[in-house]
This record gives sequence, structure tokens and C-alpha cells, in this order.
Amino acid sequence: MTEPTTARRSGGRAGRQALRASHAVERAAYLTRSMKPYEIVSDEGLALIEEAAEIILADIGVEIRDYDEALPLFAAAGADVVGTRVRFPRGLCRSIVTATAPAIYTQHARNPINSVQIGGNHTVFAPNYGSPFVHDLDHGRRYATIADFQNFVKLAHMSPWLHHSGGTVCEPVDVPVSKRHLDMVYSHIKYGDKPFMGSVTAGSRAQDSVDMARIAFGGDLQDRTVMTSLINASSPLVWDGTMLAAAQCYAENNQACIITPFILAGAMAPSTSAGVCAQTLAEALVGMTFTQLVRPGAPVILGSFASSMSMQTGAPTFGTPEPALVLYTMAALARRLGVPFRSGGSLTASKLPDAQAAYESAATLLPTVNGGVNFVLHAAGWLEGGLAIGYEKFVLDNDQLGMMATFVKGLDLSENALAMSAFRENEPGQHFLGTNHTLMNFETAFYRSDTADNASYEQWIEEGGLDAAQRANKLWKSRLAEYELPPLDDAIDAELLDFVARRKAELPDEFA
Amino acid sequence: MTEPTTARRSGGRAGRQALRASHAVERAAYLTRSMKPYEIVSDEGLALIEEAAEIILADIGVEIRDYDEALPLFAAAGADVVGTRVRFPRGLCRSIVTATAPAIYTQHARNPINSVQIGGNHTVFAPNYGSPFVHDLDHGRRYATIADFQNFVKLAHMSPWLHHSGGTVCEPVDVPVSKRHLDMVYSHIKYGDKPFMGSVTAGSRAQDSVDMARIAFGGDLQDRTVMTSLINASSPLVWDGTMLAAAQCYAENNQACIITPFILAGAMAPSTSAGVCAQTLAEALVGMTFTQLVRPGAPVILGSFASSMSMQTGAPTFGTPEPALVLYTMAALARRLGVPFRSGGSLTASKLPDAQAAYESAATLLPTVNGGVNFVLHAAGWLEGGLAIGYEKFVLDNDQLGMMATFVKGLDLSENALAMSAFRENEPGQHFLGTNHTLMNFETAFYRSDTADNASYEQWIEEGGLDAAQRANKLWKSRLAEYELPPLDDAIDAELLDFVARRKAELPDEFA
Repeated sequence: MTEPTTARRSGGRAGRQALRASHAVERAAYLTRSMKPYEIVSDEGLALIEEAAEIILADIGVEIRDYDEALPLFAAAGADVVGTRVRFPRGLCRSIVTATAPAIYTQHARNPINSVQIGGNHTVFAPNYGSPFVHDLDHGRRYATIADFQNFVKLAHMSPWLHHSGGTVCEPVDVPVSKRHLDMVYSHIKYGDKPFMGSVTAGSRAQDSVDMARIAFGGDLQDRTVMTSLINASSPLVWDGTMLAAAQCYAENNQACIITPFILAGAMAPSTSAGVCAQTLAEALVGMTFTQLVRPGAPVILGSFASSMSMQTGAPTFGTPEPALVLYTMAALARRLGVPFRSGGSLTASKLPDAQAAYESAATLLPTVNGGVNFVLHAAGWLEGGLAIGYEKFVLDNDQLGMMATFVKGLDLSENALAMSAFRENEPGQHFLGTNHTLMNFETAFYRSDTADNASYEQWIEEGGLDAAQRANKLWKSRLAEYELPPLDDAIDAELLDFVARRKAELPDEFA
Repeated sequence: MTEPTTARRSGGRAGRQALRASHAVERAAYLTRSMKPYEIVSDEGLALIEEAAEIILADIGVEIRDYDEALPLFAAAGADVVGTRVRFPRGLCRSIVTATAPAIYTQHARNPINSVQIGGNHTVFAPNYGSPFVHDLDHGRRYATIADFQNFVKLAHMSPWLHHSGGTVCEPVDVPVSKRHLDMVYSHIKYGDKPFMGSVTAGSRAQDSVDMARIAFGGDLQDRTVMTSLINASSPLVWDGTMLAAAQCYAENNQACIITPFILAGAMAPSTSAGVCAQTLAEALVGMTFTQLVRPGAPVILGSFASSMSMQTGAPTFGTPEPALVLYTMAALARRLGVPFRSGGSLTASKLPDAQAAYESAATLLPTVNGGVNFVLHAAGWLEGGLAIGYEKFVLDNDQLGMMATFVKGLDLSENALAMSAFRENEPGQHFLGTNHTLMNFETAFYRSDTADNASYEQWIEEGGLDAAQRANKLWKSRLAEYELPPLDDAIDAELLDFVARRKAELPDEFA
């Protein structure tokens, strides 16, 4: 019944080919979500969790370990300090945080077009963090090196969908622990021009990060936030001196901290999701309060990292329903508190970039985006519960991040999108491929995956019958081969290298 | 700083082991979502799409092909019929559907504990539908047989997470087209006891399905809906005689139809998501109207199947952002119309149960659940754009469905879940594994995946270093080996076999 192809319609194929050639990926420095976050808990339910957090803070309190400097600060603010135990009268932390912590802040990038907004209806994707191992299909799993670190900085730099260079994208274990922060910060500055994170493994390393950022950004940082760094609690209900010293350094310098209770539910917190949320909120409130006492107005993010547990082995598990429930709930609690929120990512316990890895990553990433997370660490590359970063996994996750960039734009309801002109020019039963409306819209109509194979079975077999990981293996290699160094002022580069050399000479070699 | 393990705590491991031994999977006949669906389009936006659908129905109308019987019915209801073109005054279809189509209905199963509620805040998962090929790791891709069909009926029967036996779970191409509906309906009744779907490939085959259901359920079906069957439009804007004849048969017999425009955006509809939604709503309104004109009050589901398109090949693509936007929007439109909604599933274009398959399936399934879909066809097994059903994919998807069953229960905010007793019995810095609260909750605290490997890298290597698909390969084989035939009255079985034999003798052998 289909009408014979008309002259107008025969222009379709040529038209599409012309459009295709001109295709360039549209990129934003960060996502701006057009739809409201998905709320799965009522306001009354959220208030119950807030009340539980206040009870924890008032009745049980937190331990401040190996950082007596913080105790007078808390006491002066009205906390009850007995030895290293600090209890907070109900509402005290919340009132301190809401009084001065910004709801949104700008993290400046070395290249201004890459500066990001953190908070509000924005989402920033940052790579994997903290893995001592790397994985790729050619060599399997092995210890990470500074060369791997730089490779991932390059891949993030080239990605249209990652907004941030991250921090310890992997642990360069071939460099002494005492010195590797210098090489990592330098690599973020040298091999990319997106925002990055500073070191948190000692107060002095945070100070080195700040000093290097001062060189890179040309002077004082008091009016500019150029680093967002990861400060983890020692759950349950402990803050230790290493993290507090780093947080103090960053806050004093107007740099942002992500205050994150890192919780394996059942071990570092109760096994119930509501209990995990109450504890996360309590611990995070203490860390955020600390930053505001150090410097009122210092940018700070409420972080939540919560995994469930395998009953068989006690191992952390990812992509399961309970962490998704925690994520949605904590995101709502952060909104009520009025601070940016960090959680989620592309998490998995799988050792390979296989179906398990993808199901679990998607089951983390979609709640991350729907829940309205503002800063997403581990958005690409994570494998094996964070013990490894995978090259193929990085490329596959990156494609999913691209899809999120399209999704959050929401449904276009313009006259063009409603397409009445297409219906009016097309008879029932006739395909739309050749209509003017399709020709005008086809180029931008659909997200183009760079890792999916949508060919016919026969064509796929002819092209080698590769699975997604095998295709991704080719992609990361071709991308690294095409990498180009972003411009960096020679004088700044020399000053950075000089700083790194001087500090390395001062510091002892330590590997643990 | 951690306290030495106390006597009370040392009971933890033994306690967990005892609980573990008693573990049984909790199963519901269908899901009941505790949270509201995720709404991504405003009421004003949804009204714009409804208006566009009404314009399509009034100005362009639909073609009714090879089914002149339907034309007087539409004309008598107030439609403008010119030849085979039927135009509907604005609001006519909507008023007919809203007047009599039920918002929710019960589909009865042969085993009453498996009867499902379709509509409202309920979700029913049904397997893959319509694939001519099967795939497994041992034999790759090959044509499906009735033995495969029965295997998938058995696997769905055994699954705690699939609520429905489905319909054409695969095409048994070793049985003549003219007769295979008899073997398929018989297999659903014989090898499982969950609800199932009838044949739609001819009016006479729908009648055979009704006759067999009468035997299975013991008598007249006028007061009981025991089949929900899939009626697809011939998009754009065409309804054909085959589907309408089947729909008429089912509606006359008070059996449910899923009225589904099946759309590859850009080909069978405009390439814009809002246009796809407007057309889907228009086409579905016509099909639903037809069922209500045949029999007011006959159960009917608004269906939407929309995929995006590869610009490189014109092939359908899945798990991309545009179909997710369409899904969320159509779900909201169905709620406004007051009818149950079908969409989504575990869709993918991948030829293998690899990372692509899992990302795309999850990126379809999560919107399916968050969007509040009531009936989910293709919830397990789908590969290769529907051309194949995979044994391993079936097992892997099934696990994800289990996770959804936990997720939709939402956040427990009971006193036990808020866990204040756990915080009161536990010192800061001390793990919660041995607390009474954890012991009381650990057994049911976390969803237990049956396909994920959460072991350490070393243990995983020791156990063979298998990927998810390889583990799933073992699982479907062990499940089929453990399968037990559900009870079926001997007299009913004999009558069904007699019916099948008689109809096979009457029908010619046709293979296309």
C-alpha cells in the first residue's frame, strides 16, 4: 500500500549523508536537568530521618580521632565535648550549615569553558577514584602506574561527557605514597584542562595541592574555588585527623570539600536503608559543620556512598535496590538542607566489563541522574568494587554518560517536536523517512552511541562478531592515539615542575 | 580503637548461618509500587500532546485495511468514514474509552495464586515475545523450536520474578504457522500455571485460543478475563484486518487486548519524541475505541513500543534516551486517560548477553518501573532487537526483575528500619555486624542476586574467572533440570490434547 517513492523523497538518503558528514557532538561543560528529581520518600518520611540524625548527634555523638585542634572549634560553637566525644544539641549542626554553606558554587577550570556549576539542577560527571589496580582486555588486571593515571586523565580530557578530570583516578603505585600526590595534581593540570581534585591523604599534601593550584591559576585562590576534594568519614561516627586536616586546609583556602560517609551497610552502619540514611546525614552534618566553622561560606558537598553486602561473603555489592533507595533519599535530604549532593556513579562488583558490570553500573547511574545528584564521582571506569579501573569499562560508561546528557534535556514540546507538519505531509501507511520534517530533524533526532552495535546479525558476524568490551578495547586505543596536549603556559609549566622537583627532594620515599 | 569482640558479638556468624539456611525467596503474584511514578512532563505539556493526537484523529484519521466490518461500527459511534479512511471528531475516541474501559482488571491464572492485577500501581512482568531465533552460549544463534518455547515457559514458571507466562515467547518455527498457535497455547497451560496470552495472527487463531482457555478454565469466560493478548497497529495510522479480527474476538469474549502502536521513530513516525507520543496516543485511542465499541467494558491496555534509529544503518536502537522519554510521557498519558499501560522491558540490539545488552536492558527496565508501567512484555530474554531470545539473557534479566521487586517497596521507615536501637547499642568506630539489630535484620536486609559475582578477585579467579553470561549458562541448565510439571487435571489435559489434535487435522500445513 506504500506509495511509490517520489522525487522529493529520493532526496532523503543524500540529504542524510550530507547531514551525517557535518555531525559534531554537542557538548556542555556540565548537565542542567530540565526535569525535577524523582522523589520516592514523602516530606514526613524525610523529617523522620532528619529527626533520627539529630538524635544520633545529640545522644551518641561522634568521635574526633587524632585531631584535638578541632575540639575547641566544636565546643565554641555549642557542642558538648567530653574527651574526644563530641555531641551536638539538636539542630546545631543544621543551623551552622544552613547559615553559611552555599547551595551552589562554581569550580573553575584552567580552561574557563570547562568551569562547572556544582549544585542546583546541575550534574557534573567525574571519573573513577582510588583504584590500586587497572584492567584491560589485553593484560587483564595489574597494579596501576602513573602512565595509567595519565592515560585516564587524557581520556577524560577528550570525553565530551565527562565534565571533570577527577582526583586519584587510579593509584600510581610505581610512585612513592609520599610523593604521588605531586605527580597526580601535576598530571591533571598538564594533560587536561577540566576541573580537578586535590590530595586528601595528609594535611601537607592538601597544602601541596593548594600551592600547585596557586601556580596553575596564577595567584591567590581566596576568591576562586578551583578544587573539589574528597573527605571521607571513618564510619560509624568517627572523623579522623588525616581527613580533618585536609578538610581544614581546603576550607581555609576557600576550596570545596565533599564530606562523604563511606558505608558498607550492615558493617559500618545498620543493615536497614533508613538507618544508613540517618547515620550518613549525621556524619555528614558534622563534617560540613567543621568546614563552616573553619571558614564560613567555604563550598561543601554532602556526600553519600552506600553499598549493600553479600550475605554469602560479607563483600560489598553494587547496583542492588537498597543503595538506590538510599541514594534517592539522601539526595532529597541534601535538597532540604540546601547544599550540593554527591553520590552514585557507574558502580559494580564485577571483575570484567561484562553484563554484570553493565547492569550494576546502569542500576547506579540512572538513580544518580533521576535523583538529581550534583557531583558524580566514579562516573566512568569503576570495576571490582573500586579496586580496579578498567580501560574498556571507562569507554563503555562514558557512552552511557552521553545518553544521560540527552535524557536530562527532557521532552521537547516545541511546534517542531510535535511534528504536525510531518503528519500533514504524510499519508497513513507511508513511512516518514523522506518527509521534510524528518530531513530537518534526523541529524539531531537520536543520541548516537559510540559503543553499541546495532547492525544486523549477518553484518555483525562479518565484522568479527565482537562483544561490547572488544569494541571498547579498540576505542580507548584509538582515542589515546589521537590525544593532543592542551595548551599550557610554558612559565607555569616550568614553575609547576620546579615545585614538584623541590617537594620530591624534601620528602622521603614511602611506599605504604 | 575497635573494641575486642564480645561474647554477644561472637554469636553473629553462627546466627547469620542459621538465618541463611532458612532463606526463602519472598514472591508476590505481581508488583505493587509504593512510590508515585516519575513524572518528567508537566500537565500542560501532556495536554499539548493530547491536543496533537486529537488533531491527527480529526484531520488525518486512520486507514482501516481489509476489515470493512469495523467501518459501520466507527460510523455509528460518530466517526467520519470515507472509504477506508476514518476520522474522529475531537474528543470522540477519548470519551468512548473513558466511558467504559476499566482502569484496572484481574487476569486470572489457572493457579489462582498467580492471578494478576493489571493497572493502578501494579506492575506485571512477562517474558520476551515474538523472536524467530534463540541464542545460547553453547550453540550460538539458531531458529527457535517448540522445545525452546517450552523451555522458556518452564523457566518463567519457575521464576519468582516473572508474573506471567507471556505469549509467543519465541516462534516455534518447526511447527507450521497455521498450527503453532495451538502448541503455544497448550504449552502455556500445560508447562506453567501463570497467566498467559492468546494468539493474534488471525481471527480464527484468537478463537482457537478462546476455545482452549474455555477448556482450561472450565466453561464460559464472559465473567473472567484469562488472556491478555497483543494487538499491534500497522503504524503510521493504519489498523489492519488481521489484528482487528483478533481484537474483536477477544473483546467479544471479555478478554483483554494490549493495543500497541509499534514504532521505529523516524520511519513509522516522525523522528521527534513528542511526535512519536502524539501518534502513539492517536493510534492507540482508535484501537481501544474499537474494543469498547465491540464490547463496552472489555479490558484494554494502552501500549507503546518505540525505538530510536541508528543513523548509520537505519536499524532500530534500544536503551537510548529518546525511547525513555517517550516511555515516561506515554505512561503519564495513559494515567490521564485512566487505562492500564504497557511498555518497556529489557530491550537491546546486542547479539550477545554482553555489556551492551545489559546497559540497554537496564536503561529500558528502570524507566519502565519508575514510569509506572503496568504490563511489561519483553521483561526477560530479549536480544538482537527482538529477533532472538537468549537463554543466558533470560536468566540475567530475571535477576534484575527481582531487584525491581525490592525497589518498588520503597524506603521502610518503621522504627526498626530507623535503627535507633542499633545506634544505642553500638559505640562509634565499632562495626554493626554483631549488633542485635543487624542479627534481626540481616536475613532480609539486602536483595540477593543469583547472577552477580561479588567475591574477591582471587576467589573469582579460583572459581574459573567466569563472566556473567557464563555463570548464567550454568543457571538455566540447572533450573531446567530441576523443573517440575505443575498439576493439571487429567480430564482437562485430555480435552485440550483432543482439541489440538482435531484442529491440527482440520488445518493445512503452512510455513509462511
